[in-house]
Order: sequence, then C-alpha cells, then structure tokens
Amino acid sequence: MVTDPQQACFEAGIKFGSLYHQFAGTPLSPESAPSLERAMAEAIENQPFCEAVDVDIDEEALAEAADDHGYVELTGRFMEVQMRIVYEGVTVRTEMVMEDGYPLMQVVAVE
Amino acid sequence: MVTDPQQACFEAGIKFGSLYHQFAGTPLSPESAPSLERAMAEAIENQPFCEAVDVDIDEEALAEAADDHGYVELTGRFMEVQMRIVYEGVTVRTEMVMEDGYPLMQVVAVE
Amino acid sequence: MVTDPQQACFEAGIKFGSLYHQFAGTPLSPESAPSLERAMAEAIENQPFCEAVDVDIDEEALAEAADDHGYVELTGRFMEVQMRIVYEGVTVRTEMVMEDGYPLMQVVAVE
Amino acid sequence: MVTDPQQACFEAGIKFGSLYHQFAGTPLSPESAPSLERAMAEAIENQPFCEAVDVDIDEEALAEAADDHGYVELTGRFMEVQMRIVYEGVTVRTEMVMEDGYPLMQVVAVE
Repeated sequence: MVTDPQQACFEAGIKFGSLYHQFAGTPLSPESAPSLERAMAEAIENQPFCEAVDVDIDEEALAEAADDHGYVELTGRFMEVQMRIVYEGVTVRTEMVMEDGYPLMQVVAVE
Repeated sequence: MVTDPQQACFEAGIKFGSLYHQFAGTPLSPESAPSLERAMAEAIENQPFCEAVDVDIDEEALAEAADDHGYVELTGRFMEVQMRIVYEGVTVRTEMVMEDGYPLMQVVAVE
Repeated sequence: MVTDPQQACFEAGIKFGSLYHQFAGTPLSPESAPSLERAMAEAIENQPFCEAVDVDIDEEALAEAADDHGYVELTGRFMEVQMRIVYEGVTVRTEMVMEDGYPLMQVVAVE
Repeated sequence: MVTDPQQACFEAGIKFGSLYHQFAGTPLSPESAPSLERAMAEAIENQPFCEAVDVDIDEEALAEAADDHGYVELTGRFMEVQMRIVYEGVTVRTEMVMEDGYPLMQVVAVE
C-alpha cells in the first residue's frame, strides 16, 4: 500500500527531477535570468498537484561565472528552488539548495 | 518531520522526473533503441539511492511511428520504465506506463 | 577552407538544434506559453553571433491539444521560430515551421 | 539563395546543437560512459544527412571530477565529438573540443 503522504512525496520528487533535467544546460546570462526563472516556475506548475514553484537564480554567482564569455550553462550552482505540492490534502514543501558543490533536493515538510 | 518511507518516495520521484525530462526529445529509431534503453538506465542508476532502472522501448509503436521519416522524438508513449529505489532500508518500486495517452508515473510498492 | 557564409550557416544551425533540444519536453499550457516564448528567445540570444530570436507558440494548436489534461509537452508542432545570426558581416536568416508533421528548420537567406 | 555547401553547414550545426543540449546534464560516471557515448552517437545519426557521429568521453577528466560523489552531470568539458554530414554531395566534417574552458564547435572541412 502507498499512503497519501508517500504519494505526495513521490509527486514532489517528480517535479524536482523534471525541473532540473529539463532546464540544465540552458544558456544563461544576467540579462536572461528573470525570464528563465519565470518560465521554469510556470512550466513546472503545469504538472499535476504542483501548487507553487519559486526559482531564484543567484545573480552574484552568475555574474561572476559569466564574466568571461557573457553567459554560462544553467546548473544547480546558480539557482535555489522552492516548491509546494498538494496531493489529496497533504502538502509537501521542498527546496533545492547547494551543498558541498552539489544541488541537494530535499523535503522540508509534509503536512 | 519526514519519515524514511516518505523520503524514499521523494527520491523515487526525482529519478522519474530526471529520466523523463533528460531524454524526452531524443531522436529515436528502431536501430538506436537498444543503445538508448541502456544509456538511460545506466545514467539514472548513477543517482543516489537508485538500485535498478529498466527501460523498455516499445518497438512496435516505434516502428509504426517512425515509418514516415525513419525516426521519432522520444516521448512517454514509446517506453515503459521500472525502477527500484532503496533509502535507509526502505525499498520503493515504481513504474511508468501509458494511460489515456499520458505517461503515468506511479509507486507500485513501498516495502 | 571554410568561408564566412558557410561558418555563419553552421552557427545558425547550432542555435536551432540548441533551442529545439533544450526545450523539447517542457510542460506547456496556454497560461505558461508567453513566459516560455520569452525565455527560449532570451536563452538562445546568449549564444555567440545570435542577434535575434523570435519564438511564437501556436495558441490555437496548444489550446486544442491541452484540452484533456491542461497541458502538453513542447514539441515542434506547437511553435514557429525565426532567428537572425550575424557572423563576420554575414547575416543568416532562418526559420522553423511545421511541414508534413515534422519541424523543418531552414535557411531563409544568407546576406 | 542558399548554396548546397551553406545548407550542408547549417545541417551540421543543427546536429551539434542537438547533441549538446539534448544530453547536457545527464548523470555520468566512468561505468556509464560507454553506454552514453554510444547512445548519443546513434541518436544523432538518426537525424537527416548525418552520416557518422563519434563521441569520446574523457575518462581521465571524468574520473577526477566524479571522485567526490561517484558521478557528474555531462557538460562539454567531458567529451570530444566528431561528425560527418553529407548534403547533396557536399561533405562537412565538424568537431567539438574544449577551448579556454568552453566547448568549441567548429567546421573542420567542407568538401
């Protein structure tokens, strides 16, 4: 058997994997960061049970990395993400932050 | 608080979203299907807690769709996927099958 | 030897392949179409020699296809793209349109 | 007007952009490198006018980068690529190598 909170966590994981691997590699500059933040959030919010997505590109890290060529390719080191998934009355809050050089996706709360 | 089974389900979801959105759109023909099946499985098995991935491309559906141009772009309608995730002693079995024209990712068992 | 017009055409091709395969598979609805159009254009405009990108998502085709589940995954059938690449004084104009069910990327002019 | 050599270079560029942005971000380890090399080559060879693709993942760079977590995400720094495109009797040879920390896609010969 799978409980509703377990199913809600599974759905939350799908959204994170989707967001990361759909957009990793996208050419990114300080000028294009705002449009990508918004498009990523709105794209993933289309998925079932996904109530809210917030993507925050780290402008300081980006500006430094883009200094040589004017742009970089998006990886986890340039963004923080927060999501809220609601499945059958269960709310799951998740976030992605950098830890030890790797993007760490984690469940913050199951309510 | 987040329980181990919930965390395991979250991890399982990440792998499914990753697999789907990393490889959706890949040019695919009957000739290249075996190498893509294998590469998809081995790529996602690199991710933490991912014990086994099996990707099965539907050769009949592919052959029919590729009839005109010799190839298609990978979408969920051409594949079935099974995964086993193990997190802190909890095993989660998941699968992706087509349902009503959409790829349905689901938890089969939490053990 | 490679001439400047040939190199310009090569650069134009890179941008098209990048745009298509970076964003194919993105969850897309009528509500999220405007932000994705803008993000795709601004992302690819970051690439070298890329002066202008215009992405136009076909709202009618999208609305019809998204009728069942509220969203679709982006493929070439939902968009038209125009680009202008400038390399060493050579301007290449390209576009992508649907033809016979496949997205056809073509050079419109080399000037 | 667009000449056959220009069109051939455009087609060559499409293949490079496709390969790079389809597979950038794929989880990659020394164990999974051979299957990904092969799948990338065979996938892009499906595209029109693409005669041959060779992908060579740099095992040394990969082993070093994957030392911490066991895997990395694919970027241009881990691979070299060679392609041969043939369009209307024109052969275009291209390659991708790292230069100054960025993947440089270039036309080697138009014959």
